[in-house]
Amino acid sequence: MVACVDIGGTKVAVTLASHEGFAARFSEPTATAGDTGAVASQVLRMIGRACEAAGVPLERVDAVGVASTGPFVRRDGYVELASPNLCGALAGPARGLPNDWSSATLERPLCERFRVVRVANDAVAALVAERHWGALRGSDDCAYVTWSTGIGTGLCVGGHVLLGKNGNAGHAGHSFVNDDPDRSLCGCGNVGDVEAQVSGGGIERRFGVDAATLMASARAGESAAVRTVDTLCEILGRALYNLVVTLDLQCVAIGGSVFWHHRDHLLPKLRARLDGRLPAITAGASLVPAGLGLQVGDYGALALVA
Amino acid sequence: MVACVDIGGTKVAVTLASHEGFAARFSEPTATAGDTGAVASQVLRMIGRACEAAGVPLERVDAVGVASTGPFVRRDGYVELASPNLCGALAGPARGLPNDWSSATLERPLCERFRVVRVANDAVAALVAERHWGALRGSDDCAYVTWSTGIGTGLCVGGHVLLGKNGNAGHAGHSFVNDDPDRSLCGCGNVGDVEAQVSGGGIERRFGVDAATLMASARAGESAAVRTVDTLCEILGRALYNLVVTLDLQCVAIGGSVFWHHRDHLLPKLRARLDGRLPAITAGASLVPAGLGLQVGDYGALALVA
Repeated sequence: MVACVDIGGTKVAVTLASHEGFAARFSEPTATAGDTGAVASQVLRMIGRACEAAGVPLERVDAVGVASTGPFVRRDGYVELASPNLCGALAGPARGLPNDWSSATLERPLCERFRVVRVANDAVAALVAERHWGALRGSDDCAYVTWSTGIGTGLCVGGHVLLGKNGNAGHAGHSFVNDDPDRSLCGCGNVGDVEAQVSGGGIERRFGVDAATLMASARAGESAAVRTVDTLCEILGRALYNLVVTLDLQCVAIGGSVFWHHRDHLLPKLRARLDGRLPAITAGASLVPAGLGLQVGDYGALALVA
Repeated sequence: MVACVDIGGTKVAVTLASHEGFAARFSEPTATAGDTGAVASQVLRMIGRACEAAGVPLERVDAVGVASTGPFVRRDGYVELASPNLCGALAGPARGLPNDWSSATLERPLCERFRVVRVANDAVAALVAERHWGALRGSDDCAYVTWSTGIGTGLCVGGHVLLGKNGNAGHAGHSFVNDDPDRSLCGCGNVGDVEAQVSGGGIERRFGVDAATLMASARAGESAAVRTVDTLCEILGRALYNLVVTLDLQCVAIGGSVFWHHRDHLLPKLRARLDGRLPAITAGASLVPAGLGLQVGDYGALALVA
């Protein structure tokens, strides 16, 4: 029996998994007040609650997989969530978080209770899941990209999942690929990075409309919406091209709530930003929808301990 | 005794190396005419000539390391140079290459003659050398960036040198980080990628002046040159920032002829593009001059077989 924990900017989800499948799924708003151990305490409490609901003693939980929003820092060898720890929204005072945490504990309290604990960035966890069960099976040089409230990526080169010095590899959503005339502000404090411009959160802040409404308008042929979505795809497509030529990738799987419901419409627009550019590298790279679709959140945490 | 081969856009250099050091260094303009085996034949001939000059029988060469300009493709499992195989100059008809090669053989003819052959992109080879003997010793999450006629990068994450599906990982010089108002044309055919704007070749094409002259003018305080160099550093600095946040790097070593002679002047300008951006990731990343300086070309090929 393993516990799967998904820590996002707005909610924490916990579920138990065994060979029989998932059981007892709970979700709560992410703790943002209290002391720096509030998130870890919430996770421990939710795992306990899930065990109770499933009629399973806590001792039967052998391992905990945690797929979490970053960025991470390490203190005394343990992963903590760094400030601004929820990059999909405006950071610090601008976002109005009711705490002054510079970092929040995460890995250590879990390690004190469970034998095996694996913490990874949520997009990295999704990459691992897509390599196990999804669209990236059999590919050693690949990426998972989520186009959601934020933009996240998980990267794998030569069969090795990239982590970097503190497990933050994959923050390509915070890279710069163009000069943003609107000077969009990102949750991380950057002005005009990819996430600020094209993420679900960025779309709401820039255009005053949620991403689902914008996408639906574009598909209905409203010309302003069509132009906006084309521009968003140019920007994200550039970021995908940059990843492919920087890492010589074979396959990129794309998921996330903004992308998923309109994937047939969006995929060719993204692909167009690769075609014809440095064909020695891009011609052999495919863009595909994520194999696990919107379930990748559940499977990500599981994949870390599977 | 090993042969070290450095294949660049303008010249091929061959030297022999043993425990006693380098011997019999030869350099020739890169073969660009003849059949698709011309470059490989040139390399074989030059190795023979070096052995003759050093008074060493060819049979004593156990291994050949080849640091070469890319991009690479694989045919029948062997690395070949792809078109446009010399990305630092204008490609195809625009560059006026006197051949119609879609790819040029490289690895196979060498493997038929020598027991151990290792071919890698020249910036990847330089990264390996910097990790062995230079500024990247002890760093598992690092990059080597050359600011030279072209822009090349070699990448290492988690102690694994990144190669990608065909050994082309590190082509970050062909990524897009801004909107280039001049629409500079790159040797690879891209318009406005990093290499097109800031490389030595790009500087010559854009400003009609060689990079060394431009740098000297900027250091002498000529205001137009100062502004131009500041802009170049903003663009390359963005590319460095993108690498650091995408791969969570700990250290980036910078070399190359454009950078090297003005490294004290340029390094703080590049560093400024990282400072204050996503500090959870960038604060722990250092930018340093390459440890091997301008000798990294010789050491790169050697490092592949050392």
